[in-house]
Amino acid sequence: MKTFFQYNWIVREQWYQWCEDVPEEELLRARTGGVGSILKTLFHIVDVEWSWIRVLQGKPDFQEDFEAYSTLDKVRELDHKFRPEVEAFVNSWDETMETRALISHEANGKVDVDAWGEVMRHVIAHHIHHCGQLSVWSRKIGKKPVSANLIGKGLIEPDMEGDQ
Amino acid sequence: MKTFFQYNWIVREQWYQWCEDVPEEELLRARTGGVGSILKTLFHIVDVEWSWIRVLQGKPDFQEDFEAYSTLDKVRELDHKFRPEVEAFVNSWDETMETRALISHEANGKVDVDAWGEVMRHVIAHHIHHCGQLSVWSRKIGKKPVSANLIGKGLIEPDMEGDQ
Repeated sequence: MKTFFQYNWIVREQWYQWCEDVPEEELLRARTGGVGSILKTLFHIVDVEWSWIRVLQGKPDFQEDFEAYSTLDKVRELDHKFRPEVEAFVNSWDETMETRALISHEANGKVDVDAWGEVMRHVIAHHIHHCGQLSVWSRKIGKKPVSANLIGKGLIEPDMEGDQ
Repeated sequence: MKTFFQYNWIVREQWYQWCEDVPEEELLRARTGGVGSILKTLFHIVDVEWSWIRVLQGKPDFQEDFEAYSTLDKVRELDHKFRPEVEAFVNSWDETMETRALISHEANGKVDVDAWGEVMRHVIAHHIHHCGQLSVWSRKIGKKPVSANLIGKGLIEPDMEGDQ
């Protein structure tokens, strides 16, 4: 679990760096698919990651409005504000939390029960999915996208003592 | 690990179903980003997933040529041919394999050492990333993409006996 979050944080940082060379109007341009623009996607990723972690902790979430965070600097600031709480939660993750039940009462009276392990993997997959969308838009504006390669980022130290 | 693979297989099956209603010329149309077409992306996902599993097992891989698999039926057939081996490997996964070293000798004499746990996560992220690309192209042709939601697919049974 932690490895995937670390991967996503590295990739997200690389997308921020990628954005530095791109005119703001390209970052905000309405695009087909996903949530509609490059910067809004990064904002959405940060928002959704933090919001789910809040939900799992039973803490109040707030509905962030992209209009208030529509520059690269503001998205980065929001990310850095949320990150410590997300990191602490991810670092505290253990096997016993996998099947813990999240009970959600919907407006229509329906009750949803989901395993925490599903929620955490959803957050991970959500991030990667949206970065896949960014990669298409990146090529559209003629720029090489951030690599999605998970290998070679030093995330897991291989055991050199083994017989493999 | 298994949960993510199961998620990817469900989503992949849903993308095949999605393809059934799409004219073949749209599936093969050259597109900006990724590997260049919808069907080639699905082929690439299947190929890469199987190839890495072969590499980890020290078994020979072969370089599949998309030209020989350029219909939905052929990609599905290839997938169903490869799946049992991938599934068996994923189901055999345990913690002790996480840091096992994969040693790769490159053409230029360089030796790469990667942890198996990184390779497996790469395969997972690779799949999700490419499905993100499919979702953009899907909107381009005016069709709702397959949902990337990991929650609600019955992947992990929540524990209703706990105090959460």
